[in-house]
Amino acid sequence: MTELYYAQLCAATREFVGLSSEREALLHALAPLVAPALDSVTDHFYHHLQKIARAAPFLEGRLPQLRRTHRAALAEMFTATYDKDYVERLYRVGDAHVRARMPIEFMTGGMTLTGEALIPIIVGLHADKVPQHAACSAVNAAMGFSLMIMQESYQLSRLVDEQERFLKVTGISRELFQNLAATHRTLGKDPGAA
Amino acid sequence: MTELYYAQLCAATREFVGLSSEREALLHALAPLVAPALDSVTDHFYHHLQKIARAAPFLEGRLPQLRRTHRAALAEMFTATYDKDYVERLYRVGDAHVRARMPIEFMTGGMTLTGEALIPIIVGLHADKVPQHAACSAVNAAMGFSLMIMQESYQLSRLVDEQERFLKVTGISRELFQNLAATHRTLGKDPGAA
Repeated sequence: MTELYYAQLCAATREFVGLSSEREALLHALAPLVAPALDSVTDHFYHHLQKIARAAPFLEGRLPQLRRTHRAALAEMFTATYDKDYVERLYRVGDAHVRARMPIEFMTGGMTLTGEALIPIIVGLHADKVPQHAACSAVNAAMGFSLMIMQESYQLSRLVDEQERFLKVTGISRELFQNLAATHRTLGKDPGAA
Repeated sequence: MTELYYAQLCAATREFVGLSSEREALLHALAPLVAPALDSVTDHFYHHLQKIARAAPFLEGRLPQLRRTHRAALAEMFTATYDKDYVERLYRVGDAHVRARMPIEFMTGGMTLTGEALIPIIVGLHADKVPQHAACSAVNAAMGFSLMIMQESYQLSRLVDEQERFLKVTGISRELFQNLAATHRTLGKDPGAA
């Protein structure tokens, strides 16, 4: 992927989830306040995941490493510059989930568990409605940003992966498929099934 | 899809996002409290989406209908029995997004915008930490549940859709492909590219 792609994806995703510069600055200001509580978010995340039969195979033998990755990703949500470099890092996380053959909705489930533990911490930082609301909105946008990037990446990787399997099953070379696809686009119609 | 599939998907997704019977009952109890504020959530959702260039084509000429659908889905989040019938309804929403050729991450973006408007309303219902925390967790689980089901459905529909396009491009019949795939599985190895 090119730098331009990541830059465009960054801008589009910031716009979609409403991750403004003000919210980014607020996340950075929240970083030292939430830091002492982030271990508890990672604890909750893996405590819950370990009880889920479908999730267990993805955790087996990898828990200490996964915990460190999740904890670092949480911290980065509050310290990151939301730019093309951060997008590239999140993009690789999406790819890694495809390579691990994890269903895409697991990322949504994971972010739900993260939010369950994180949102009450954010709400608890302020007693006044205005800063409480602002902090919730900034964290909500940050979680949405991460999930959107990871899922865009996942979707593209999955598609490439499925095409590879399809080519293997049919015994068609990638070169031949590209030529067929180009012809198909030129014809602009269904060439009909064999 | 069979009833058994929806029932299993329901149980698995409830478990993943932590949507317990207690939280379901709490959502029902919150329903009359949040009802007067739900119009403002739908307003926020479409007000923001209309400003996004990539989202605009999906809204064009359909806004009144989409607003009604979003508003009804919001209300249902608080009134639904989280069972196989609800899963089936959410599943069809995922399919509809594939048919509209909407990228999967748009559903995540949409749920982020919904959360942005909804979470402060939920937080504002209670001054005490304990009921406030419980209400946030129940709504967080409900949003995660909906998004997971819609994305599981989306992923499957997308895969079928891609396979169809692949078959059209290559001119291979579905019957032949199924036979090839079965042989491929039996061999349990890469038969090699042509």
